[in-house]
Amino acid sequence: MLNENNWFTEVYPKNGSALSLEVKAKLHEEQTPFQHIEIYETAWFGKLMVIDGCTMVSDRDNFLYHEMMTHPVLFTHPNPKTVWIIGGGDCGSLREVLKHPEVESAVQIEIDERVTRLAEQYFPDLCSANSDPRAQLLFIDGIQWVKDAADGSVDVIIVDSTDPVGPAEGLFNQAFYQECLRCLRPDGILVQQSESPLFHMPLLTAMHQTMRNAGFPPTRTLFFPQFIYPSGWWSATMAGKGDLGGFREDAARAKSFSTQYYTAEIHQAAFVQPAFFSDFMATLA
Amino acid sequence: MLNENNWFTEVYPKNGSALSLEVKAKLHEEQTPFQHIEIYETAWFGKLMVIDGCTMVSDRDNFLYHEMMTHPVLFTHPNPKTVWIIGGGDCGSLREVLKHPEVESAVQIEIDERVTRLAEQYFPDLCSANSDPRAQLLFIDGIQWVKDAADGSVDVIIVDSTDPVGPAEGLFNQAFYQECLRCLRPDGILVQQSESPLFHMPLLTAMHQTMRNAGFPPTRTLFFPQFIYPSGWWSATMAGKGDLGGFREDAARAKSFSTQYYTAEIHQAAFVQPAFFSDFMATLA
Repeated sequence: MLNENNWFTEVYPKNGSALSLEVKAKLHEEQTPFQHIEIYETAWFGKLMVIDGCTMVSDRDNFLYHEMMTHPVLFTHPNPKTVWIIGGGDCGSLREVLKHPEVESAVQIEIDERVTRLAEQYFPDLCSANSDPRAQLLFIDGIQWVKDAADGSVDVIIVDSTDPVGPAEGLFNQAFYQECLRCLRPDGILVQQSESPLFHMPLLTAMHQTMRNAGFPPTRTLFFPQFIYPSGWWSATMAGKGDLGGFREDAARAKSFSTQYYTAEIHQAAFVQPAFFSDFMATLA
Repeated sequence: MLNENNWFTEVYPKNGSALSLEVKAKLHEEQTPFQHIEIYETAWFGKLMVIDGCTMVSDRDNFLYHEMMTHPVLFTHPNPKTVWIIGGGDCGSLREVLKHPEVESAVQIEIDERVTRLAEQYFPDLCSANSDPRAQLLFIDGIQWVKDAADGSVDVIIVDSTDPVGPAEGLFNQAFYQECLRCLRPDGILVQQSESPLFHMPLLTAMHQTMRNAGFPPTRTLFFPQFIYPSGWWSATMAGKGDLGGFREDAARAKSFSTQYYTAEIHQAAFVQPAFFSDFMATLA
């Protein structure tokens, strides 16, 4: 919502806090069949996309989220050739994935085509790899896509979704994780955005437990800053069909593309667990 | 400021953003000779101290700042026996410092006694080490204290100050750093809160340059999340009279006290530089 002084505010009611961004202009607003989308020109964060009242992506700080949703999992997997991105309609994760020359096919499965069309219009940088011949953009239900897919047909699944309410709710349950496990090749890895370690530890521990209940042997969380998400501190959680201990460190050090946040050292640092997080993990079955 | 719905808001005007916390009650407000202090009971963050309109410390998330201002520097120094805390009137850094059994003397030099008196009343947990016989609480000007101190008289100086405007401004310049360097023993280390890597890179790079101009050979920044500070991502910068590459890792792993965030692994991870930060550092003389 915008107040009378033209500031957009997102309230985190369960955590008694709110983030506000100064807006110079509202560029677009629409109700799609799935959600409400707004695009703003902000004073400092560049363009901002808001979905159902939640800040999704800004020019200024999206590099943190998109780099950390993609490069850690791709340099953990021994040989990622095929990648699915469930959600990710702003195409920023797709762009990062396609920086990896070993990726032969990246399919973005976004339920709401309007997210991508608006990203193409207002966030052209994020969409700069959309015409890569390895990219395929589908606008269908990611849950159904995974259900219909053949066993052992993908190396990496990136769940780049909104919060676990509304259209994304079905991406956070055991049935979905079981289908992902089935679709992954032997070394396959699922990675999912997993909310804030400061605000959402119950969700985070439940996610680990649900992934393990679904049959994933190892799960690991990585941490990174992301100001425009609740608490400014965010996480992604990996679940591996095989081992998650791998790291193609030489490849990460020698990567042929530039990043603003990710480095081989950041890769390793991001997986380090805060003391309170280790305590939570110790309670898991 | 509180709005009509009882939310406290701190605006970051240069960065077009603002943080708001839901307030249940204003517990105290006063103008001291140095600054304006407010104490709130918040809905989710416990008690909150605000100085000159800026959130300083909350029950809920101060562990991040206080642990990262103290344990990394104390486990980097080979044998920290004497510690000065410049500022730090809420006594949270003092409490963390005194968890280290090798510390023989910790002097907190806070210019505004009211900060500490209010902390004793509203944040008793942070003040639980104030009566430790190794602790000395002084309410004088930290800049003058350092000027008056003998050469080579301290192992670790922790500058736990407000932002570099108002009373703390003199804690961010070359003259102050030169005095600190003079007061440090041969292995001595200065550590200072150094603002946000997302919002304040010009200040951060200037701090490194100024510390080096003052004669400190090495400088290093460490990073940690801190929601109630601007951008939710914060830093501390160390300057060493000798080497900064040391880490008493065995001691950190075997530490006799508990922490919520800091671990030996977090110590090492916190020093890892994001790619953009390394680029900035490469521009320093």
